[in-house]
Amino acid sequence: MLKFKLEATCNKTKARAGVIETPHGKIETPVFMPVGTRATVKAMAPFELKAIGAQIILSNTYHLYLRPGADVVAEAGGLHNFMGWDRPILTDSGGFQVFSLSTLREITDDGVLFQSHLDGTRHFMTPEKATLVQEQLGSDIAMCFDECVPYPCSPENSYKAVERTIAWAERCKKAHKRSDQSLFGIVQGSVYPEQRIYCASELKKMDFPGYAIGGLSVGEPHEKMYQMLDVLSEELPHEKPRYLMGVGYPLNLLEGVARGVDMFDCVLPTRNGRNGTVFTYSGRINLKNKAYERDFSPIDPNCNCYACRNFSKAYIRHLYRSGEILASRLCTWHNLHFLVDLMSKARIAILEGSFEDFKRRFEDNFNDEGGRR
Amino acid sequence: MLKFKLEATCNKTKARAGVIETPHGKIETPVFMPVGTRATVKAMAPFELKAIGAQIILSNTYHLYLRPGADVVAEAGGLHNFMGWDRPILTDSGGFQVFSLSTLREITDDGVLFQSHLDGTRHFMTPEKATLVQEQLGSDIAMCFDECVPYPCSPENSYKAVERTIAWAERCKKAHKRSDQSLFGIVQGSVYPEQRIYCASELKKMDFPGYAIGGLSVGEPHEKMYQMLDVLSEELPHEKPRYLMGVGYPLNLLEGVARGVDMFDCVLPTRNGRNGTVFTYSGRINLKNKAYERDFSPIDPNCNCYACRNFSKAYIRHLYRSGEILASRLCTWHNLHFLVDLMSKARIAILEGSFEDFKRRFEDNFNDEGGRR
Ligand SMILES: [Zn+2]
Ligand SMILES: [Zn+2]
Repeated sequence: MLKFKLEATCNKTKARAGVIETPHGKIETPVFMPVGTRATVKAMAPFELKAIGAQIILSNTYHLYLRPGADVVAEAGGLHNFMGWDRPILTDSGGFQVFSLSTLREITDDGVLFQSHLDGTRHFMTPEKATLVQEQLGSDIAMCFDECVPYPCSPENSYKAVERTIAWAERCKKAHKRSDQSLFGIVQGSVYPEQRIYCASELKKMDFPGYAIGGLSVGEPHEKMYQMLDVLSEELPHEKPRYLMGVGYPLNLLEGVARGVDMFDCVLPTRNGRNGTVFTYSGRINLKNKAYERDFSPIDPNCNCYACRNFSKAYIRHLYRSGEILASRLCTWHNLHFLVDLMSKARIAILEGSFEDFKRRFEDNFNDEGGRR
Repeated sequence: MLKFKLEATCNKTKARAGVIETPHGKIETPVFMPVGTRATVKAMAPFELKAIGAQIILSNTYHLYLRPGADVVAEAGGLHNFMGWDRPILTDSGGFQVFSLSTLREITDDGVLFQSHLDGTRHFMTPEKATLVQEQLGSDIAMCFDECVPYPCSPENSYKAVERTIAWAERCKKAHKRSDQSLFGIVQGSVYPEQRIYCASELKKMDFPGYAIGGLSVGEPHEKMYQMLDVLSEELPHEKPRYLMGVGYPLNLLEGVARGVDMFDCVLPTRNGRNGTVFTYSGRINLKNKAYERDFSPIDPNCNCYACRNFSKAYIRHLYRSGEILASRLCTWHNLHFLVDLMSKARIAILEGSFEDFKRRFEDNFNDEGGRR
């Protein structure tokens, strides 16, 4: 079971700095978790993730359940052994993917019948099974199996999903046996404050060691997302870690931190990286742009990641145009470094009592023509 | 200009151990050179190439001339700066690619008119231009622009190409100005011993600092290749390094070493790696094979490369099936390590006087159902 210690809270925002202790080590929060969907953070090797200071990664139960199979991972000695990562791992429950990736879904109170997006095979996923699979994977933090609704969603449909998510959370908790793994509850409720509050209060009664906020960053306006976070920052227990699922855009991260979120994950830095889009403190740029043909300066002269210490924009642009793997590697490396570093700087600012200033300075410099996602 | 020092010769075979000194450091021979076609060894970063002990890499003039352009590389401060590699680099002349990749070729004694395989633009490549481009790239070792013939090739056509290769070598030598770059001659002559001898003897008169053997490993039977090497091992000057172009299959490497070859390059280990095919001391295996689904042992338990120290066949197989970049990275890493290590072991055996034994033991263990390429 994990321990969470709050070290400091901002007196102008709701930002918090804390430490989570897991069987595979400590996590200093706020923290960004790189996503390793299929037991690998795309384009990165474990030693590189350590080099950028990644403290915990996320992996996807749905994908690993279908391939290579949870039994194969268990036989390998668990996910840490299988993928050669000895720091903490968080697994999602597969709920989000069952609802977004698979076909032929039939949802009942019992569970979800779905068809694999890989080979069309049929599977029945239940709260109990999602819990068992995560125990086989052996992550440090597991997630309850929840029902995710798309955006927009009617209040009625969202409410049904909330009820189911609460009932399933109860069943996950009952099914969960591993004492070296912590099971988090997930708050649903679309963009309806009263549903969010209801869901959080019900989950709170079950006394989970941590709480995730799901069903956001699915297309709703940012203001709606911030509103939900504002509501939940009061409702969720202060002494437990809070995890905002699927958010990784720099400006959103800082808004989340300011609303008391401790943990984030997103495929944005890795997916952007493979497309040649990189974050800098002045905004997001795309290295495929002709403007960088003879730009022999690094992506960010102040960044000390491997890519910026050794290579120019012109070189990385050349690699992209040539379809070379090293292009994806360097941009992914830089982007993950950027977000991990941003959270580390935010943490220091919280500890020093200067978070609000830090956030404002970042926002003033970060001009992103590409919008917020 | 490079210096070559012979340190030992085998008394049973023609194998040699030597040291080549270049402006970017020493190269202990025999040596395998990883291929970095487009200013990157596919899937590898420079620090990883150093980790496996790569002493020199090869890059392709044809590709860099077309993209990003030799002027861009020159403006970056040369190829070493551009790609972040501070050890020796060898560039080929582009001859091989002009004849194998481009379309609409018109060969005259003056040069070759060809159409880019990338965008169809027309270019006229001459010995002088190939030399200039390589000077712009700033490699430590440059190659003469030669005419490569396919296999099979009639004696008449091969002879014409030999004459042109000799005339062009003369022009390359005349055009070559950089004193910190060494220009090698290339011996052509298909599978005709008398043409090989003739070409070598003419090039010898021009006193190049090193000699390459081109036009082999293009589909001819291995016995023909070995026969040409036998012939040339006598004809080429002993005090100069010899480079067999395009050969990287383990058994062929040792046959080449036994015939006095000092340098090799080939895309085989990188290309194989991206397909999941890896070398082991007992032969070549494909990790995509179902047999490795639950094989939690490394590719080669005796290999100390990063892939073998940290990951199982089952994990790498999973990465391949999932289309993950890390699969290509790990197999490429292992394969290059294997060949670099094989040459290093061969060198030690030559120095210790046990090369013939070493070669026999390797051949006895290496069972490759996949044939010799
Ligand atoms: Zn960077
Ligand atoms: Zn290995």
